[in-house]
Amino acid sequence: MLYEITITQFKKMLENLSRILEKGEKQAETKKFDPTVLLNARLAPDQFNLTKQVQIACDTAKLCASRLTGKEAPIHEDNEKTMAELKSRIASVVTYLGNFKSGDFDDAENKRVSQPRWEGKYLLGEEFAIQHAIPNLYFHVTTAYAILRHNGVDVGKKDYLGEMPFKK
Amino acid sequence: MLYEITITQFKKMLENLSRILEKGEKQAETKKFDPTVLLNARLAPDQFNLTKQVQIACDTAKLCASRLTGKEAPIHEDNEKTMAELKSRIASVVTYLGNFKSGDFDDAENKRVSQPRWEGKYLLGEEFAIQHAIPNLYFHVTTAYAILRHNGVDVGKKDYLGEMPFKK
Repeated sequence: MLYEITITQFKKMLENLSRILEKGEKQAETKKFDPTVLLNARLAPDQFNLTKQVQIACDTAKLCASRLTGKEAPIHEDNEKTMAELKSRIASVVTYLGNFKSGDFDDAENKRVSQPRWEGKYLLGEEFAIQHAIPNLYFHVTTAYAILRHNGVDVGKKDYLGEMPFKK
Repeated sequence: MLYEITITQFKKMLENLSRILEKGEKQAETKKFDPTVLLNARLAPDQFNLTKQVQIACDTAKLCASRLTGKEAPIHEDNEKTMAELKSRIASVVTYLGNFKSGDFDDAENKRVSQPRWEGKYLLGEEFAIQHAIPNLYFHVTTAYAILRHNGVDVGKKDYLGEMPFKK
C-alpha cells in the first residue's frame, strides 16, 4: 500500500496544487494585479512564501519516491519566478512519479531512509512515508492553498481534495 | 497498513494539535490577550475559524475510524468555547482511537463507506482513507497551525510533525 499512499496520492495532490495556482493566476489577471504578489505572499513574516511552499511540496513528493525506491529524482534549481515556471516544476514531478509502479516499492517498507540534516539517523521506509513525507506533503499543499485563500483567491475544499472515485 | 496510516498517525497528529493549541494559550497569557481571539481567528472571512478547524479535525479522525470499522464513535456537540474544552474534545477522540487494534481493520479496505452529503454514493474503505480522510485530517490540522502562526504564535514544523522514531 506504500505506493498508493505516496505516489498515487502525491501525484493527485500536485495536480490539484497546479490547478489552485491557476486560479490564483486568473484572479491576478481579472483583478489586474501582478501574480508575483501571490508568489511572494506568506502567512507570517518568518514563514516561507507561496513559491517556496510549492517548491517544497514538489521536493517532498519526489524525494519520498526516490528515497523509498533508490531511483534518482530530477534536479530542480529552486529558481522559479512565475506561475508558469512553478506549474512546469510540478508537471516534471508528476511525470517523474508517473514512471513508478507498485512493484518498485516491494522493499520500501523496511528500507533505511535518511537525509543530510538527520546526521546519520534514519527512519524505516514505512515510518518515513507515514510520519514524515505524507504529513509534510499535505502541510505544504495546504499552506499554499491557505496563502491563496487568505489573499482572496476563490479556492475551496474540493479544489484541494480533487475528484473522488465515487461509486453508485 | 490502513490502521497505521489512519489511527496511529491521526492519534499522533491530534496530540500535536493539542500541544500547538497550548502554545496559543500560553501566548495569550504572556501577551495578556483573551485566548478567545485566537479561537475566533480565521485566514479568510468565509473560512472556518480555529475552533471549527479543531472540531473538524477531531470529527475527521473519529468518523474515519468509525466508518472503516463499524464501531460507534463518541458524540460531540460542537459547543466548545475555550482552549480547555477543545483540548478535552481532542483527548476524547485520542482515547477513542486508542481502543482500536490493527485487526479491527481486517475488512476495512473494501468496505463501502458513505456519508450523508454523498447522496447514496460511496467509496471503498481504502479510497476513503487515502483520498478523503487523510488529506482532510492534515488539511484541518495544518489550517489550525496556520491560523496560530499567522497570529504570531511561536509554532514550527516540528510541533506539527511531532517526534520521529529515529534510529542510529
